[in-house]
Amino acid sequence: MLQTPESLQRNLNIEVRTGHNVLAIRPDDRQVEVQDIAAGKTYTESFDKLVLAPGARPIRPPLPGIDHPRVLTLRDIDDMDRIKEVVDAKIERAIVIGGGYIGVEMAENLVERGIAVELVELQDQIMAPLDPEMARPLQYHMEWKGVILHLGAGAQSFEESDGKVRVFLSTGTELLADLVILAVGVRPESDLAKAAGLRIGPRGGIVVNRHMLTSHPDVYAAGDAVEVLNPITGLPALVPLAGPANRQGRIAANHIFGKPGAYLATQGTAIVKLFDMTGGGTGANEKALRASSTPYRKVYVHPSGHAAYYPGTAPIHLKLLFSPDSGELFGAQVVGFDGVDKRIDVLATAIQAGMTVFDLQDLELAYAPPFGSAKDPVNMAGFVGANLLQGDIHLWYAEDHQMAMASGTIVDVRTPEEFEEFHLPGAINLPLDTLRTRHPSLAQERPVYLYCQVGFRSYLAFRILTQLGFDAYTLSGGVVTYCQVHGSEMCDGRPMAPVVPYAEAVSGRCRK
Amino acid sequence: MLQTPESLQRNLNIEVRTGHNVLAIRPDDRQVEVQDIAAGKTYTESFDKLVLAPGARPIRPPLPGIDHPRVLTLRDIDDMDRIKEVVDAKIERAIVIGGGYIGVEMAENLVERGIAVELVELQDQIMAPLDPEMARPLQYHMEWKGVILHLGAGAQSFEESDGKVRVFLSTGTELLADLVILAVGVRPESDLAKAAGLRIGPRGGIVVNRHMLTSHPDVYAAGDAVEVLNPITGLPALVPLAGPANRQGRIAANHIFGKPGAYLATQGTAIVKLFDMTGGGTGANEKALRASSTPYRKVYVHPSGHAAYYPGTAPIHLKLLFSPDSGELFGAQVVGFDGVDKRIDVLATAIQAGMTVFDLQDLELAYAPPFGSAKDPVNMAGFVGANLLQGDIHLWYAEDHQMAMASGTIVDVRTPEEFEEFHLPGAINLPLDTLRTRHPSLAQERPVYLYCQVGFRSYLAFRILTQLGFDAYTLSGGVVTYCQVHGSEMCDGRPMAPVVPYAEAVSGRCRK
Repeated sequence: MLQTPESLQRNLNIEVRTGHNVLAIRPDDRQVEVQDIAAGKTYTESFDKLVLAPGARPIRPPLPGIDHPRVLTLRDIDDMDRIKEVVDAKIERAIVIGGGYIGVEMAENLVERGIAVELVELQDQIMAPLDPEMARPLQYHMEWKGVILHLGAGAQSFEESDGKVRVFLSTGTELLADLVILAVGVRPESDLAKAAGLRIGPRGGIVVNRHMLTSHPDVYAAGDAVEVLNPITGLPALVPLAGPANRQGRIAANHIFGKPGAYLATQGTAIVKLFDMTGGGTGANEKALRASSTPYRKVYVHPSGHAAYYPGTAPIHLKLLFSPDSGELFGAQVVGFDGVDKRIDVLATAIQAGMTVFDLQDLELAYAPPFGSAKDPVNMAGFVGANLLQGDIHLWYAEDHQMAMASGTIVDVRTPEEFEEFHLPGAINLPLDTLRTRHPSLAQERPVYLYCQVGFRSYLAFRILTQLGFDAYTLSGGVVTYCQVHGSEMCDGRPMAPVVPYAEAVSGRCRK
Repeated sequence: MLQTPESLQRNLNIEVRTGHNVLAIRPDDRQVEVQDIAAGKTYTESFDKLVLAPGARPIRPPLPGIDHPRVLTLRDIDDMDRIKEVVDAKIERAIVIGGGYIGVEMAENLVERGIAVELVELQDQIMAPLDPEMARPLQYHMEWKGVILHLGAGAQSFEESDGKVRVFLSTGTELLADLVILAVGVRPESDLAKAAGLRIGPRGGIVVNRHMLTSHPDVYAAGDAVEVLNPITGLPALVPLAGPANRQGRIAANHIFGKPGAYLATQGTAIVKLFDMTGGGTGANEKALRASSTPYRKVYVHPSGHAAYYPGTAPIHLKLLFSPDSGELFGAQVVGFDGVDKRIDVLATAIQAGMTVFDLQDLELAYAPPFGSAKDPVNMAGFVGANLLQGDIHLWYAEDHQMAMASGTIVDVRTPEEFEEFHLPGAINLPLDTLRTRHPSLAQERPVYLYCQVGFRSYLAFRILTQLGFDAYTLSGGVVTYCQVHGSEMCDGRPMAPVVPYAEAVSGRCRK
């Protein structure tokens, strides 16, 4: 789309042979065997250095009926042309299998084309790179936009039905559609490398060192076909992203020409636009930290994307994961409407710089009302994280609700009206304004588990009670995070009205 | 607007006395003398620690006629109410004096209210925190939106004229308007501190140490009234910004209570929305680096805000300033339409982390077509900066045009059509596609000063010529930066059509 073989020849003196298929690599002979598809013949080509950049191909599990002509995958422009041809024929219903980046983007685009879409995902959340509670607002938003989700369900077989496809799910549900998009992940194109005797890693990708050199000293590899190191766990991982692939290509080229540079790790910074919302993350998520038994702490904040009185903003849901000792950042996830991409990039930069939650407090970010706040959401996350590590605040978490109910007093410090509309099971209501006089009603010997809407009022309540000698904790992220964790419909997925003040925007929509 | 004395009393147990004016501070007695304005009496109040946060007031130079009731300044909500009252009376013409943040924002808002606006600025550029060539696109955009600019002009006197104000400029021009907004800067409110014997700095602000302590051990100060250190020059500076003021308040409070934290410097990260455009910067600008005789290097790039094929993007103009030795970032300026605030914040974070141009190459930023490119504009600036310091590219600059014309051959490597539409004085045209065959037409013994539209094609040309033994240089930022530096109207200030492909968007509008 961007270049032709002729333009690359003219500008860069690179000979590009399209329609030529490499059948085999003989690294020790420094030769490849090439098939000229149009000419119908094969020939041998020599090299001094070889760079493999074959990418990854969509997974097509061997399910009955999966070869139905309306069950399509998406890798390249030809694939998209095939999908577009079907869509242009004015179809009514489509099924997307897989709730990752490609799956949700396909669902969004099909809805925008006026097609009724159902999305099937094996896990009980969409967007697996995010932790479940952070994927929840995106899920509700998709549902509000009309996408029917089948979570915790796998496609088991496909059947022709009068030109349509019938899909049988593991849950017993049958779906019928004009088009099925299979987006259940990709697999590195490492067969050629494997056949050539190059080392393949545990995840099936080509193994490379930090100069992108394979197990053979004259063969490099870069892009979605290689395994990278997860910077937190130190284990091999497959991270098929365009930015890292670009960097790897530069590093391979530099090494061939004796220039410095090394590829150390992939943070996995990624983002998706999903209708009016944006979500993404950088670094490790909580699932990965748990799986690798890495000690961590976490905080949730929900500030608005920019000054709440300036039109066009809505709450940002931001989760920060960091070292319990040094406060070094491990990862961050951000979901919301405006300014989400900016906060992900600032946090990606901070992680790469080895910054801590303490450093985030001091970031001097650009403030004018259309763009942020004098205390940016990233600063706010730093304040809460630093308070936590310094002991200025004690947090409890939504997933500890049963424990809190059993062992302490759960206190809602919001207004009686907010309490009436929704409150945590087992909570009593002591509005912040009354706490300085009404605290004697609380049992001093039991822990007090405070909460409010997003965590600000319960922080003030925590300070008041702590100074009075209570053993108090405040719920990280408040009711908003609680509802995201427990899957209650905190909000109905509606696009946030741009002029709704922050406090209203995040309150009053809990339906549990 | 956000809190009342009552809400602060209830929530935070803080007693707020509005309508009380501090007349004098007696630090050694730990007392202040207070006037209760409503009661018409004064009283003495004691303190253990005192925090001064008086802010800054707009400068009103003692010019003839400046007390005209329609010559207004803007500091607080009352000021804005007065301005709004005049505007609501359906006036036709307004003059804004001062082209800094407040001046240009006032001009924008008045235009949005349907008022004809003229802006008077003493310097020959608007937005002095930016270097002149970076302010230029904002200037053209303002003019396209109908604001008449009087640059290099000062207001000398004001005169009543049938309920309107006549303004006499230093250039001899006379202007007439219904309203004049005076936005020529602010002055720290340090009189009270000075009278109390506290140390005042060379810029007129209150002197504080890194704990925000004044010259008296019981008196702190924070916000626009204090002097901070410029991190590059190490000299005292006044930087009236909301983010730093907030941080200073926290640091003063922490120190009072024996908690850690220090205020080291103000980067001066700032941003302005100006109609459809955004511009801002962080760290030192080139003017400051020159003034302090700090050695530096610079690069300009003009990539699009996000993937050019995805709607809603336009070129970002990005200038990066850094150490010639280590590549450490000194400052950055970013001007454009979409994604400007994000790049400023990423660069502000990188500067705070002590990152170099080499580090910028490796930043793993979030990429999806609506948000960026696989190689983000910040990465691109890092690539060019790193290439420069590694000697992989030699740059020349638009301000060296006379020198280049006198001492070498200026070669335009764009197409003949682009050359025909606009080219640098003295340039010859050798399109990149032809360079590998036509280079013998170039004199080997003279330096070759290459350029193209934004710098990509001339980089390729540089590599070709250098490998052929030429002493070649490529123009940083290409024709786009050339036109911004020399003030030719590179673009007419129109909002960039969101679907115009990048190459077209940045080409073809040079009218010099």
